[in-house]
Amino acid sequence: MSEPLAPGACIGILGGGQLGRMLSVAASRLGLRTHVYDPGANPPAGHVAERVTTADWEDEAALRAFAASVDVITYEFENIPTATLDLLESLRPVRPNRRALAISQDRLTEKDFLTGLGLTTAPYRDVPDRAALAAALAEHGAPAILKTRRLGYDGKGQARIMAPGQAEAALAEMGGADAIFEGFVRFTHEVSVIAARGLNGEVSCYDPGENVHEDGILRTTTVPARLAPGQHMDAVLLAGKILNALDYVGVMGVELFVTPKGLVVNEIAPRVHNSGHWTQAGCAVDQFEQHIRAVAGWPLGNGQRYADVVMENLIGDDVDRVPALSREADTQIHLYGKGAARPGRKMGHVNRVSRG
Amino acid sequence: MSEPLAPGACIGILGGGQLGRMLSVAASRLGLRTHVYDPGANPPAGHVAERVTTADWEDEAALRAFAASVDVITYEFENIPTATLDLLESLRPVRPNRRALAISQDRLTEKDFLTGLGLTTAPYRDVPDRAALAAALAEHGAPAILKTRRLGYDGKGQARIMAPGQAEAALAEMGGADAIFEGFVRFTHEVSVIAARGLNGEVSCYDPGENVHEDGILRTTTVPARLAPGQHMDAVLLAGKILNALDYVGVMGVELFVTPKGLVVNEIAPRVHNSGHWTQAGCAVDQFEQHIRAVAGWPLGNGQRYADVVMENLIGDDVDRVPALSREADTQIHLYGKGAARPGRKMGHVNRVSRG
Repeated sequence: MSEPLAPGACIGILGGGQLGRMLSVAASRLGLRTHVYDPGANPPAGHVAERVTTADWEDEAALRAFAASVDVITYEFENIPTATLDLLESLRPVRPNRRALAISQDRLTEKDFLTGLGLTTAPYRDVPDRAALAAALAEHGAPAILKTRRLGYDGKGQARIMAPGQAEAALAEMGGADAIFEGFVRFTHEVSVIAARGLNGEVSCYDPGENVHEDGILRTTTVPARLAPGQHMDAVLLAGKILNALDYVGVMGVELFVTPKGLVVNEIAPRVHNSGHWTQAGCAVDQFEQHIRAVAGWPLGNGQRYADVVMENLIGDDVDRVPALSREADTQIHLYGKGAARPGRKMGHVNRVSRG
Repeated sequence: MSEPLAPGACIGILGGGQLGRMLSVAASRLGLRTHVYDPGANPPAGHVAERVTTADWEDEAALRAFAASVDVITYEFENIPTATLDLLESLRPVRPNRRALAISQDRLTEKDFLTGLGLTTAPYRDVPDRAALAAALAEHGAPAILKTRRLGYDGKGQARIMAPGQAEAALAEMGGADAIFEGFVRFTHEVSVIAARGLNGEVSCYDPGENVHEDGILRTTTVPARLAPGQHMDAVLLAGKILNALDYVGVMGVELFVTPKGLVVNEIAPRVHNSGHWTQAGCAVDQFEQHIRAVAGWPLGNGQRYADVVMENLIGDDVDRVPALSREADTQIHLYGKGAARPGRKMGHVNRVSRG
């Protein structure tokens, strides 16, 4: 497929959470239909998708039927089982591609890839065993962070080592999973670049946003971010370098630490990203439509920002503030249609807009 | 029901065209679900609604099941049969209310209502028969327009009388339907006010947009409209007067002629309106969300405009321009998911944004 998808075509979305939900809405604006695949019943994206399949990632018949019903497949999360991808890739184009997914699924592979491009990451070491952890600590010292190589998100699968004596406990927290040691980066703040690359290789980046986390979960993103003009350009160029190296198609979130010595890449996410939700309020084409445009083979939209925005996540009980938020001026509410508000669960977000 | 609808509640939407589609998307942003009722198969709104009922307006069992599944009912078009409304009103709140619908369904009733409020409309006369038409023509002269009292839209059910000799042909065009005679209004341009009123009586108006029609169909809406500050205020105040008089809940489109002698009300539409589509690109809360907020008993959002916008409808073959439009900067595309592009059929629209 090299022609842009025509209106009426169907995009398959793996994962039916809030990202899939907002992708589905974006697809509808372009006259495209969506089919959401999720193992869980009543996924948030299902409320705004034309079709929903509720089936496990291992259900070959369901996966085949899903693929047969769509023109292209994308995903809202990166931890899709390998066998699932193998099957789907044999049936339909999957965008972004396999390599981006494989790299982002493993923190060690990701760091090797990024440093291989000449980019700076935190100092890191593979930790296959206790001896390797001791060696890494001896080399880089504390504080440091031990992380599982796979399946970590929102601060899960991480243990801080504030002093060498905490190494044993940190290793125990990994629960036997493969781990990676990361030296501490002394940064002033974190920013992220939401970058997109089209099927024809064109690249477009939104203005970097400045992120504040609490308990490992994104709390707010503010645009514009505090960045010197040179840093802004560095951020955009390194994002483009990553996308090009991967022959990437779609939107990627690139998290960066801002340090006195320059930008350090924290991690990449091969999908629309929480820190890009502000684009819904500040741009003619938001990150969700940009991703759909890319995977559908359309030209990328113009991501130019025409307002200042502060995005705030509504996590857990924050959702009880919606009645008050709904009375705030210039505040755009986005709720995800989830049921119970468990602690740490992302229930929605607001975009507070001011003139740019 | 006086409490705002909580996330997870369901809004029933009568009519599944593009307006229902965009209402459904707006509801999803507020965490509300939607159930669309439409007699036609595969309605555009169905692609982004949680549920769709395909049934006739006379299907009492389907109407009862629909009402039972929703918390409040609204509509995307004003020509809902009276018996349908009678039944639904007995089961669930219907917003906007019956009176607004009844008034806008009949051009004569509408004009009587508007002039009764002290507002200016085109000179008009009921035309129950040939003699009445002759009398109206004798009084007001040509040019004039003969319109069916009911079921007219997009220029349908209208016949111009450029000279008295054309009266007979115009009457024949009405096909025996009740008709109304309207004298010609010499106006410089047309604007519309998209006004909203909440359940608690608060009123909020978007900046007036300036409309250009072609062949009776809206072609473009531009904000800001050409209006002197006094005219702008007049437009907003008269819209508020109309909404208050009707104890209205929801969004209404009020079309106005701008004349040297002041504003003349052309017509009102008790629903979201094509001339309000620009709000998707220029405001934190667009007309669709504003309508959902009102009918769900939420506080109205802030309709302040933070960009200049030109909305252009994509009518019939215009949709073939989408590949070119998708390469335009600052152009937001909205397609409606309709099948064949028949002449005169609204297939989508674009919002071209510039900094305000």
